Amino acid sequence: MTDRLNVAVVGAGYWGPNLARNFRASTDWNLATICDLDGSRAQRVADSLGGVPTSTSLEQVLADPAIDAVAIATPARTHHPIVLAALDAGKHVMVEKPLADTREHGAEMVERARAGGLVLMADHTYCYTPAVMKIRELIADGSLGDILFIDSVRINLGLIQPDVDVFWDLAPHDLSILDFILPGGIDVPVVAAQGADPLATGKACVGYLTLPLSGGAIAHVHVNWLSPTKIRQMVIGGTRRTLVWDDLNPQQRLSVYDRGVDLELQSKETADSRAANISYRLGDTWSPALPEREALSNVAAELASAIREGRDARTSGESGLRVLSVLEAAGASLADGGAPQTIQTAIHAGGTA
Amino acid sequence: MTDRLNVAVVGAGYWGPNLARNFRASTDWNLATICDLDGSRAQRVADSLGGVPTSTSLEQVLADPAIDAVAIATPARTHHPIVLAALDAGKHVMVEKPLADTREHGAEMVERARAGGLVLMADHTYCYTPAVMKIRELIADGSLGDILFIDSVRINLGLIQPDVDVFWDLAPHDLSILDFILPGGIDVPVVAAQGADPLATGKACVGYLTLPLSGGAIAHVHVNWLSPTKIRQMVIGGTRRTLVWDDLNPQQRLSVYDRGVDLELQSKETADSRAANISYRLGDTWSPALPEREALSNVAAELASAIREGRDARTSGESGLRVLSVLEAAGASLADGGAPQTIQTAIHAGGTA
Amino acid sequence: MTDRLNVAVVGAGYWGPNLARNFRASTDWNLATICDLDGSRAQRVADSLGGVPTSTSLEQVLADPAIDAVAIATPARTHHPIVLAALDAGKHVMVEKPLADTREHGAEMVERARAGGLVLMADHTYCYTPAVMKIRELIADGSLGDILFIDSVRINLGLIQPDVDVFWDLAPHDLSILDFILPGGIDVPVVAAQGADPLATGKACVGYLTLPLSGGAIAHVHVNWLSPTKIRQMVIGGTRRTLVWDDLNPQQRLSVYDRGVDLELQSKETADSRAANISYRLGDTWSPALPEREALSNVAAELASAIREGRDARTSGESGLRVLSVLEAAGASLADGGAPQTIQTAIHAGGTA
Amino acid sequence: MTDRLNVAVVGAGYWGPNLARNFRASTDWNLATICDLDGSRAQRVADSLGGVPTSTSLEQVLADPAIDAVAIATPARTHHPIVLAALDAGKHVMVEKPLADTREHGAEMVERARAGGLVLMADHTYCYTPAVMKIRELIADGSLGDILFIDSVRINLGLIQPDVDVFWDLAPHDLSILDFILPGGIDVPVVAAQGADPLATGKACVGYLTLPLSGGAIAHVHVNWLSPTKIRQMVIGGTRRTLVWDDLNPQQRLSVYDRGVDLELQSKETADSRAANISYRLGDTWSPALPEREALSNVAAELASAIREGRDARTSGESGLRVLSVLEAAGASLADGGAPQTIQTAIHAGGTA
Repeated sequence: MTDRLNVAVVGAGYWGPNLARNFRASTDWNLATICDLDGSRAQRVADSLGGVPTSTSLEQVLADPAIDAVAIATPARTHHPIVLAALDAGKHVMVEKPLADTREHGAEMVERARAGGLVLMADHTYCYTPAVMKIRELIADGSLGDILFIDSVRINLGLIQPDVDVFWDLAPHDLSILDFILPGGIDVPVVAAQGADPLATGKACVGYLTLPLSGGAIAHVHVNWLSPTKIRQMVIGGTRRTLVWDDLNPQQRLSVYDRGVDLELQSKETADSRAANISYRLGDTWSPALPEREALSNVAAELASAIREGRDARTSGESGLRVLSVLEAAGASLADGGAPQTIQTAIHAGGTA
Repeated sequence: MTDRLNVAVVGAGYWGPNLARNFRASTDWNLATICDLDGSRAQRVADSLGGVPTSTSLEQVLADPAIDAVAIATPARTHHPIVLAALDAGKHVMVEKPLADTREHGAEMVERARAGGLVLMADHTYCYTPAVMKIRELIADGSLGDILFIDSVRINLGLIQPDVDVFWDLAPHDLSILDFILPGGIDVPVVAAQGADPLATGKACVGYLTLPLSGGAIAHVHVNWLSPTKIRQMVIGGTRRTLVWDDLNPQQRLSVYDRGVDLELQSKETADSRAANISYRLGDTWSPALPEREALSNVAAELASAIREGRDARTSGESGLRVLSVLEAAGASLADGGAPQTIQTAIHAGGTA
Repeated sequence: MTDRLNVAVVGAGYWGPNLARNFRASTDWNLATICDLDGSRAQRVADSLGGVPTSTSLEQVLADPAIDAVAIATPARTHHPIVLAALDAGKHVMVEKPLADTREHGAEMVERARAGGLVLMADHTYCYTPAVMKIRELIADGSLGDILFIDSVRINLGLIQPDVDVFWDLAPHDLSILDFILPGGIDVPVVAAQGADPLATGKACVGYLTLPLSGGAIAHVHVNWLSPTKIRQMVIGGTRRTLVWDDLNPQQRLSVYDRGVDLELQSKETADSRAANISYRLGDTWSPALPEREALSNVAAELASAIREGRDARTSGESGLRVLSVLEAAGASLADGGAPQTIQTAIHAGGTA
Repeated sequence: MTDRLNVAVVGAGYWGPNLARNFRASTDWNLATICDLDGSRAQRVADSLGGVPTSTSLEQVLADPAIDAVAIATPARTHHPIVLAALDAGKHVMVEKPLADTREHGAEMVERARAGGLVLMADHTYCYTPAVMKIRELIADGSLGDILFIDSVRINLGLIQPDVDVFWDLAPHDLSILDFILPGGIDVPVVAAQGADPLATGKACVGYLTLPLSGGAIAHVHVNWLSPTKIRQMVIGGTRRTLVWDDLNPQQRLSVYDRGVDLELQSKETADSRAANISYRLGDTWSPALPEREALSNVAAELASAIREGRDARTSGESGLRVLSVLEAAGASLADGGAPQTIQTAIHAGGTA
């Protein structure tokens, strides 16, 4: 039997208690400490779990040689210094989304982890839900065929955030999912962003992202804080089948439609002649059963496995960095009236910036 | 009692029979002729209505002094010559959407009608559905407040058209509705279009339009031929209430949410301070009863009223021209990789081209 | 190639035009006459189909030796005399539901047809919809396993009928479907009926039927004229799978759930010990594609086949009689405060009554 | 400011922790003790709340003069002895549904509480949800008019209980809600129960209850452990409006339809002539906003108020007893093949049994 790894949870605000509860319940982990500058907040979380050591000093936590990993759930602007400190102390790190507040910060974190041979994992929780894991599997095994389009909608009556716009608040979910399910990750050259701030709050409250994918496909994301109805839906059109993920329909989250457009390819056809060879399939619909398992317990297990196997986490720091790269280019597009902007590619661009 | 007006329906293909049936049932109209180059097709429609004269000669129809108006349901590329001929013959004209195959053609048609003092009506049928008429009313009477955003989705497994892309096939519906419900019509300076042709059919099969509205608001349209699920939904967010139109839910097509974001304005506040003054309303939802009435019967009535009262139809030629202007600029945006393009304003730009 | 059969449609009110249209479109049939006491009504239907002979005399129609079959869409109380006259004239007969206004009348009709070697078909239209034909197939091929329960709901804001209660108005649909899909037909010993007439209209407007099925299973029907929401749903629970038919969801009418309760049978177990051996399956859901085909075209084809092959129609007169038998016993139960009543079995009981 | 009352929670299994959490969070209460024969189970609940005294001895708890009230969440068959012991010790009592395992036991509990001048409250939790409280209000203020019918469906893939059938497991929810929302409580003379045990588990797994209400109205309940789809829906038809409660639709739990059947009453009409005076309203639909508040916090507040004001709780012991009376008569009906059975009225019948 494997020994348990020791983890410290840093940040006991909104998300930290969920992390703490899942590490506590995991057989891979020993929840060694809950750390928060506000000691009473840390204590409340510790009490709710039947008693766990707490600390108000990040330094002391990082100085403890028994700690193997640190899970960070503090505000985004603090990720950069805390993660670097943890990596410098030789700790593996998992960090809440978004990875950092700027692409450059994120790139530095990824490089530091790589240099130190440490795991840097992005807590892209949605990727570890049974629905998204199934989607990844259905794309990977060819059930959907080649991807034609992905349309993601995440709208709600949401709290207007004081420091970030709707893109930075909501789109990391969609982008991290795209990065997780697309075979090559979200490796796109450009992004266009359209947004609106009709209440004059100083930041976009409604937003649209368009990402051209390889092979002529397209991905599109709609995020919105002003919608009175809540929609969380992703449609993934493929050459073989099309999948609809309706996250608010617990009785049928995933529907796989064996319906679509068939293209009978011939060797010498031209684009003009192709239209004539298109036909329709109106086949069955299938909704796979999904296991009931909390995503964060999968997250905890993945972090442990990555550390033990000396490999990148499936939602690695690079993944988090790709999400940041898209968000940063989207910001530039937004500032440029929606004109598409080139996305800086990962590390090296960041390293030289 | 008013005498009936005489109308000829030109084109007995897909849409013509619906026009014929509604003119036949109207107390405003006498359905004088059904005209189609294919005489047997015209005859079948005439038979199904219990006997109506038919013709295969447009010239003869236009030469008949008894005919007051011509309703045209032929392919879009034929609208320009047929409409001009009808106007030159002194007939009032209603024409199927899109008004014409190019903005320039449309502008010429609008000018010709104006010069002749004749009604040129765009058959924007959707605008005459009870749902859209109610939406227009709720915006006009201030029930929704100022418009913040409009998001329209019209996706389906659709026939890939041989001659037009998904924008020209589907977006005229959304654009004509926007033009109808917005107090000033769809009077926007620019449009950005994103599209994809992932099956290499030679034309976009998935498309997105973004239109900045006045006051920082935004309109967005998603049209898609490749979706196995059918969605026809429009969300209209306002400062007072938000409306959701789900056209595929006959039991509750319109939902008006008294939910939203409230902004308490103060005299000296800055954009930064506004965020702090935002609060949420979670009020009731209301679904107005809608009369059961076929849209085309409203269309027939509107055409008669416009002719009798010597006024523009509510969906005038200018309205059809504004739709064409957006579509043409969208095509330019698409060709330019999605960069926003200026929309030519109506007649005069067209007149000088 | 087979010669077409000649059919006369009797009754040009609500349902007759649909019959006429489908016989007209069928390659099995020649629509010979439309017969109605109101000649102008018959003529309107004939005109709408491009011209068909009409008649106001049933006698003349029945006297015409060219007529092979008569399709009757007149009020229920007239079925008995008209059907008997048609059978006595040697015509095959199809008759609108319900077969007759009393079980005794129905039994006489069935016997007369049998004696004459003629087809007597009940127009249980719903049974010929793609959805119900698929359900029948899934039960017949064992996909659902043994039937455990059937729950059918058919509620709506319906017109309160002048002459029949909600059971006679709506339940024939549910009962004829049950008769069609259950392997042995709706062959049940008793029925209990609960009803209410809360508006004091003189007849039940809300009703419930309970039918014990063989093997401890149960069928239940809810019919209601007073519901503002329209529901047409049937759940069919089986030992292997459970099917839900939602007739108002065109995008997913049938859902087959591979979910349920498993019972591991052992040789000597007692009822008490069985509970311990129950476990749950939470498997996939599957929604079969259904062909788009109007039910009445299948009805017309089935009538032709039954006549040509000299066999009973799949919805035979006996089937219609079983439905009447349940309705009549239900009426007795209703009059007896809901106490279950024995259902008279088919012909012989009827013959001796 | 009022002093807090002291409560002991007895039973730390499935429901007890929820009670404990809500009493802990209430400003009306001091959670004095969690009592369970299994001390470690009590301790776990106590720990999760940050530390609460525990006990394994009911006697000691009842002997403690500081304890004002006892909340009992033990198996139904133990309610009778525990409640009587608590009442004899002078404690106010709240008890989990069903009130007792037999009507006679329940009647004895109610009488004992009344004799001792103590509050005996049934924890009919559903009655304290915002949705049900709103329904009660809409009936009480006449918004629905007179009740015409109530149709309740509560079906799911449920665990087959070892000791009770589907009626005793699920129907207490529906019956307690009916008792809460109907102005006179669920005061009905008879009930008919239809059930099935198609898996031969020794108890009904599918069940239907029919209850005639005053004025010709009807209530009907469908409970089912074998349905793969989960439905929790109640339709309440009234002369003025009809309400649909869909508890699984958090975005629109309540819909009030201003649609229905209108009856224009005239002085001398007979039942026959009434049908002619019926017309339809197709009015708006309205969905009231509901506060977000956990039902159990309302339960805790109601218990405190009832004790302080020396009045019956809104879900009193008598209410629990009426539910038991219906269940017991339903059992008799089930045993009698579905024939309606007289419901024993409350206390006195119980007292003489």
